[in-house]
Amino acid sequence: MSEQNPVASDAAQDAPAAAEGASDLLGLLAYARLVAFFRLAGDAELAPTLASKGALADLAAAEHANYRRLHDRLAELGADPEAAMEPFVVPLDAWHARTEPQSWLESLVKAYVGDGIAGDFYSKVAELCDPNTHAIVRDTLVESGRAEFVAAQVRAAIAEDPRLAGRLSLWARRLVGEALSQAQSVAARRPELAALLASGMRSAAQGEDSGAADREAAEDGDRAQAAEAADLAMVSRMFADLTEAHTARLEAMGLST
Amino acid sequence: MSEQNPVASDAAQDAPAAAEGASDLLGLLAYARLVAFFRLAGDAELAPTLASKGALADLAAAEHANYRRLHDRLAELGADPEAAMEPFVVPLDAWHARTEPQSWLESLVKAYVGDGIAGDFYSKVAELCDPNTHAIVRDTLVESGRAEFVAAQVRAAIAEDPRLAGRLSLWARRLVGEALSQAQSVAARRPELAALLASGMRSAAQGEDSGAADREAAEDGDRAQAAEAADLAMVSRMFADLTEAHTARLEAMGLST
Repeated sequence: MSEQNPVASDAAQDAPAAAEGASDLLGLLAYARLVAFFRLAGDAELAPTLASKGALADLAAAEHANYRRLHDRLAELGADPEAAMEPFVVPLDAWHARTEPQSWLESLVKAYVGDGIAGDFYSKVAELCDPNTHAIVRDTLVESGRAEFVAAQVRAAIAEDPRLAGRLSLWARRLVGEALSQAQSVAARRPELAALLASGMRSAAQGEDSGAADREAAEDGDRAQAAEAADLAMVSRMFADLTEAHTARLEAMGLST
Repeated sequence: MSEQNPVASDAAQDAPAAAEGASDLLGLLAYARLVAFFRLAGDAELAPTLASKGALADLAAAEHANYRRLHDRLAELGADPEAAMEPFVVPLDAWHARTEPQSWLESLVKAYVGDGIAGDFYSKVAELCDPNTHAIVRDTLVESGRAEFVAAQVRAAIAEDPRLAGRLSLWARRLVGEALSQAQSVAARRPELAALLASGMRSAAQGEDSGAADREAAEDGDRAQAAEAADLAMVSRMFADLTEAHTARLEAMGLST
């Protein structure tokens, strides 16, 4: 092992955990996309006009295509796709149950804000996976026109009734809070994924003292310990990193943080 | 006008009505596919396992692709796709409201039997349209694996509980009865589509006395009269023509007519 490149030797040690974490990430993403498909298809059915039904149905179909690609990638890697998705059914269903939109506008904001922040999160995790997995995850995170469609609808609604801005901003905050809570629960239950996250936080924090505890835990190869390190604080830090894009999305809709 | 080819001259007279009927047919089909997409996506969400959720989501996505093609074809023809779909919202929604499945098996039988007989019907009408429209409609009617999936699921359920065969056979009969009733309502409201149907029945019945009344009505160019001719009897005859494929589908599932 070369002493000249401590970063590369760190990466090599992480490899097996990263591979298991990749299967977890693909399973999480595949189920997230399948559920996003169900939600968007349901929203499309309730949309007020034939044109908006069609536009949301297009978004739903794009999510299905993402699901299918992730599912097929899992099969290609020799994993059982359904088994890889299974651990994430409860936390993702819980997130959706706790953030049931009460209006069509709320469902639009949820699709945009919720899937947006989740997408940024998945994207960060994917950077830690093998190049093929990274490429597939990145492709499935393209927003395919959703941003423009949702932002235009929400802005128009707020222009008509300015009181909506405050209510929908509150709704966006609740969506993020619930997402944070479910992400913590996932990190606690899935040590491989948590280890992958921990290694990502470690690289990001390189040279900072805050990364030292995580790094030590992973170097021991003790995944359970890494998982404990990947607790509230780590997930919160990760979410904090995602706020820039989140704020941009809120602003595009005319909402405040 | 040549006296040597009365069939061709009939066809030439039908052309304008057929063009308007084609736009009606595409609008009907586009909305039917959009609603089929909503139904299948809803069924997928309620499916008992992750694998069956995924399989039904695939079927839903195929319906969305069909919707998108029909929608784009309407735009290509210079029609307003939403305006073309609008007249069929009420009868198709009524059909779905009256045939709300009470179990996952009922929803499977509905997807297969209902969409099957509707597909056969659309396919017959499409034969009367211009070649491009005909080709697109035919492509959107490919069942993309649904038959095998549904038949296998239903047969397996009946093997486990043979009493289901009678109940599901009754359900299939009700589906066809309600479809017949909505098809009559559509024929009565859409004279161009009815005229297209009437011309189709006329060609099919050429040389038979039963076609004489329809033929005369269309030769007058009186579409309202053609629409009246396209009443219960005509739609019923058309449905009767579709029973062969319908019976084959029932048998594939282990159900009786």
